[in-house]
Amino acid sequence: MENSSTIKVGVIGYGYWGPNIVRNLLSHSDISVTVVADQRKERLLALKKTHPSIPTVSEAKDVIAAKDIDGIAIATPVNTHYSLVRAALAAGKHVLVEKPLAASLHDAEGLVAYAQKKSLVLMVDHTYIYSGAIETMKKLVNSGEIGLLQSFTSMRFNLGLFQSDINVIWDLAAHDLSILLYLVEKEPALVNATGISHTENGLENIAYITMRYKDGMIAHVGVSWVSPVKIRQILVSGDRKMIAYDDTQASEKVKVYDAGYSVRTDVEKQRLYMDYRSGDILVPKVRTTEALEGVIEDFVRAMSSGVRPRSDAEFGLKVVRTLDAAERSLRKGGGEILLS
Amino acid sequence: MENSSTIKVGVIGYGYWGPNIVRNLLSHSDISVTVVADQRKERLLALKKTHPSIPTVSEAKDVIAAKDIDGIAIATPVNTHYSLVRAALAAGKHVLVEKPLAASLHDAEGLVAYAQKKSLVLMVDHTYIYSGAIETMKKLVNSGEIGLLQSFTSMRFNLGLFQSDINVIWDLAAHDLSILLYLVEKEPALVNATGISHTENGLENIAYITMRYKDGMIAHVGVSWVSPVKIRQILVSGDRKMIAYDDTQASEKVKVYDAGYSVRTDVEKQRLYMDYRSGDILVPKVRTTEALEGVIEDFVRAMSSGVRPRSDAEFGLKVVRTLDAAERSLRKGGGEILLS
Amino acid sequence: MENSSTIKVGVIGYGYWGPNIVRNLLSHSDISVTVVADQRKERLLALKKTHPSIPTVSEAKDVIAAKDIDGIAIATPVNTHYSLVRAALAAGKHVLVEKPLAASLHDAEGLVAYAQKKSLVLMVDHTYIYSGAIETMKKLVNSGEIGLLQSFTSMRFNLGLFQSDINVIWDLAAHDLSILLYLVEKEPALVNATGISHTENGLENIAYITMRYKDGMIAHVGVSWVSPVKIRQILVSGDRKMIAYDDTQASEKVKVYDAGYSVRTDVEKQRLYMDYRSGDILVPKVRTTEALEGVIEDFVRAMSSGVRPRSDAEFGLKVVRTLDAAERSLRKGGGEILLS
Amino acid sequence: MENSSTIKVGVIGYGYWGPNIVRNLLSHSDISVTVVADQRKERLLALKKTHPSIPTVSEAKDVIAAKDIDGIAIATPVNTHYSLVRAALAAGKHVLVEKPLAASLHDAEGLVAYAQKKSLVLMVDHTYIYSGAIETMKKLVNSGEIGLLQSFTSMRFNLGLFQSDINVIWDLAAHDLSILLYLVEKEPALVNATGISHTENGLENIAYITMRYKDGMIAHVGVSWVSPVKIRQILVSGDRKMIAYDDTQASEKVKVYDAGYSVRTDVEKQRLYMDYRSGDILVPKVRTTEALEGVIEDFVRAMSSGVRPRSDAEFGLKVVRTLDAAERSLRKGGGEILLS
Repeated sequence: MENSSTIKVGVIGYGYWGPNIVRNLLSHSDISVTVVADQRKERLLALKKTHPSIPTVSEAKDVIAAKDIDGIAIATPVNTHYSLVRAALAAGKHVLVEKPLAASLHDAEGLVAYAQKKSLVLMVDHTYIYSGAIETMKKLVNSGEIGLLQSFTSMRFNLGLFQSDINVIWDLAAHDLSILLYLVEKEPALVNATGISHTENGLENIAYITMRYKDGMIAHVGVSWVSPVKIRQILVSGDRKMIAYDDTQASEKVKVYDAGYSVRTDVEKQRLYMDYRSGDILVPKVRTTEALEGVIEDFVRAMSSGVRPRSDAEFGLKVVRTLDAAERSLRKGGGEILLS
Repeated sequence: MENSSTIKVGVIGYGYWGPNIVRNLLSHSDISVTVVADQRKERLLALKKTHPSIPTVSEAKDVIAAKDIDGIAIATPVNTHYSLVRAALAAGKHVLVEKPLAASLHDAEGLVAYAQKKSLVLMVDHTYIYSGAIETMKKLVNSGEIGLLQSFTSMRFNLGLFQSDINVIWDLAAHDLSILLYLVEKEPALVNATGISHTENGLENIAYITMRYKDGMIAHVGVSWVSPVKIRQILVSGDRKMIAYDDTQASEKVKVYDAGYSVRTDVEKQRLYMDYRSGDILVPKVRTTEALEGVIEDFVRAMSSGVRPRSDAEFGLKVVRTLDAAERSLRKGGGEILLS
Repeated sequence: MENSSTIKVGVIGYGYWGPNIVRNLLSHSDISVTVVADQRKERLLALKKTHPSIPTVSEAKDVIAAKDIDGIAIATPVNTHYSLVRAALAAGKHVLVEKPLAASLHDAEGLVAYAQKKSLVLMVDHTYIYSGAIETMKKLVNSGEIGLLQSFTSMRFNLGLFQSDINVIWDLAAHDLSILLYLVEKEPALVNATGISHTENGLENIAYITMRYKDGMIAHVGVSWVSPVKIRQILVSGDRKMIAYDDTQASEKVKVYDAGYSVRTDVEKQRLYMDYRSGDILVPKVRTTEALEGVIEDFVRAMSSGVRPRSDAEFGLKVVRTLDAAERSLRKGGGEILLS
Repeated sequence: MENSSTIKVGVIGYGYWGPNIVRNLLSHSDISVTVVADQRKERLLALKKTHPSIPTVSEAKDVIAAKDIDGIAIATPVNTHYSLVRAALAAGKHVLVEKPLAASLHDAEGLVAYAQKKSLVLMVDHTYIYSGAIETMKKLVNSGEIGLLQSFTSMRFNLGLFQSDINVIWDLAAHDLSILLYLVEKEPALVNATGISHTENGLENIAYITMRYKDGMIAHVGVSWVSPVKIRQILVSGDRKMIAYDDTQASEKVKVYDAGYSVRTDVEKQRLYMDYRSGDILVPKVRTTEALEGVIEDFVRAMSSGVRPRSDAEFGLKVVRTLDAAERSLRKGGGEILLS
């Protein structure tokens, strides 16, 4: 099935997300999966049972050193991202790495610069911005139908696995911040964050971030690892319409509300008058193919044609910059951090 | 239908909420509605059409001065509360006033002290804490079934009427703070608030409050007047179970999730181990009678027997104290306000 | 508040539905409620408490005989409809009667003929067809947007009060059949019905009706008094779009699905080819005022101007004709009844 | 990975369902997939891309004739079931065949008898009865918690692929009838069915089946291929509690309503009195592993140990018997068919 134009990809990490990456790589007509690495024997055995023809190794370095590999997909814990990505780039491989790009702003900046210097693709797997629902929301925002954006509110609550090396902001809010950045294409001016830890390691498991923008927009993200109720909802309000997104719904995830208000100021009387308006709701048809399929497609396009992927390293760096500001606000009791 | 033991109540304000108060007063077997005041002729005409037998006046002072009245229900804008409540108490009347108790902490403290001095009932109409759903949640919390409370998260979003004298915190968050106080029976130690105004008067129409408690609990309230999507949801997490409340549902508003996690610390390895647990969900039967009926009943009981009502003046004062702290945090860019 | 052009209405029956009728009559600017009759003292006392100014009597005949009354609203059990309506018409009063018009096809035909002979308004309170949701559905059907109607499916399940004089078809399906008739404006050619009784009186408490039309449309109605889960949903499919209606939702009751299929027949190969199409969903804005307000308005218009009301006696008779056919099918084990 | 105790399975049909069967066979530790047959080249290429190590053939007979195969999974159109199953059994292979067992009662009876004679496993893939949700419902029914069953109501609506060889009853109602049979373990005494075809081949695309049982239970199934709204809901009522199942929900698919009524008959007055009761709702935890995994496991157990599978040939035959009765009722205009 292979031919000379096939792109050879290796995978590092076959834990929770790795199998999804392998499955989507396998389904892509231009890719062959050359090797998969994981230090855990039972993970490699699981791969062997369903895909006996894929070679496995236990050490990441054996993937990085492989001569016949064009690109590497890295799905390992965040604190390993910097060294693995850097080594892969050093070996001349294109890289697709799990979000967030790195565990600190400093590391993220270093990786962006190094990939640029090496002229290699460095892409971050911010899967959400490749989903049909978010792409539909992006089109609605870009079309001007929503009007001037006024607020973005996101809640991502779950009874999720506690990460042992990062708090809930770096783990979950990374998703929301990537969606926010993709939709609004600008970075906040002020960031506040509050949160709490219920574990001895002091890593926050519930946190709230408020971001304010120079043009008066406000964004708010709430994240939790300790909610038995799964909530994944985003509200995007413009001065013309509003989008509501609920990712827990099996269908009809995106709704557009043709409702709002407008303000008139009576200067003489020094009073405000509000006009309220409410109309139909539209549930746009949304592409339902797997988001990760789009990530892989974008990675392939970047490797083969040099086109910048949607979630390139600069995109990933911007996400990390807000994460870092939120972290700093947390450390000073919720006070505001000036970003620009 | 009346007899000597009937309590005579006057009503000031027949706008949005007044008709509900009048209807519930009329339905109570021990109350007669003696007079209703409103400065707007069309409001009094509306009352006359459906209840021709109730006398009306245009001035609040005529209700306050009426000799044959035992209590007064006040449903007017917040900035009139202080003077109307004070005058009613001065005239020896028991008072039920709309939430919040007053427009400032100073005024609220003054009213509490004055009612105490006059030995009169001063009750705040925090309607929500009399609803079947919230009462069920209170029972669950008190029973210990939820365990030690860890977090409270509330969202109250609506395309609501902008108030011209108060921001969205004083208007909407007053509801959530009353529910929070009723459930946890303690006040926060630290309060942060962020928000934004999209109108020239500078009053916030979207805001977020984080409250942290001495015992490690965190509470968060998000409120908005500018959301076409109506959201009214509260999540209360304990270390044993979790309650989810969705007031926009026609039924099944309260759900109890028997799910959670527990933490073990391996001291030698300096690692945390989490055990996750997920079980059934219970949707408890909830009383569906009108919450305001319970408010009126509590007001009657307080007037006739002297029993303190659930949302007495001290309760209302505590709500105002947190509102005031949130307001002060807003003014200093979201930084934390120390309450105790 | 009254003047010479005020229409004087009496009400017979102040049980479950009577209070809603009285409240809506009171709110109408052209109506005065002259008298209310009920044989149960406690019902009249309930009325006296909230509306002390309305005169009451215990006997229906005292309403019918009253000289100064223009119209009578009758909200009593079905088996009393024939005699009360007939007497009211005989006394020269216009009549609004609860659905269904009468307990048998014979009685319904008699009332229609008699009202015609007396040139009086005889209107049936099929409240649903005055609701904003159903009116929106009617507009969608009439506009041609849905295309040629192919199917109507309705479920009305509840843990409802068992009627002691009629089965669940005459009680609940009367609602669905009125909606169906209002939307399609034609009567079925064939009716089948199956059902079961779980009580000794043999009256069905669960039943299903299938109706087939000459043009190939099919309609199906399922009704139950014994379902703790409340279901009130209707699906209307045309060959272009589909409407889904869920009355248990607090909002967004009506949804229009721009989806469907078309059939091509390959004559040579004798095969069918289907083309499937799926697009956006629209949730149209729906009037939210009370349906009964529209019923009363229509009754007033009919009495004062002679315009035929939407649910006039002929409309009510057609509903009864299908109910009667369903009843006959039940009695012959579900076999088809030919209607026309 | 293989050893002597591995069961060798071949698969016939790699269309819509075949890939799911192959994936679940591959995941089972005791099975090896020896060969997959499909006449469509593009289907075999799809398999080759993701699973290069599985041999493929184009003809079913090459699977049936293979010496080293123990069992065969058949996922082909219904009208091929009889000949393929019969040939596989004749070749001494155990068989797992897609539902329904066969396209006619006569064929189904023949297959059951032949499998018995050959002492081979013949199992029908009624996947639903292996799902966590239906297994939970079965436990609830068996425990007596629901009480004496009174009604079963099912709706399965979809914009689904029209089958060219069978109507919607044989395609979709086969699912509901298998769930019904699994839950109640008895066959109906009377069957009525109505339906309509909107295509020239006359195969019904919307149909309704009512089944009545000797003990007074009623069951109703509505199925449609032409509904853009996907509905998959089942209500099971007993005289103590009720179960509601909604398969379109991402979670909380099963709910148990502790509500109902009881009937008292006053013999002297010849009247019925109803007592209504409503309590909590329970959402039981439901196993979320894939249903097809359970089917495969049951097939393996039957082949290796001889234990009868849950959906054995006799089970599949009973489903076909009701399908056949429904078909006959359709042909006589909805009249009742006596089954026993």
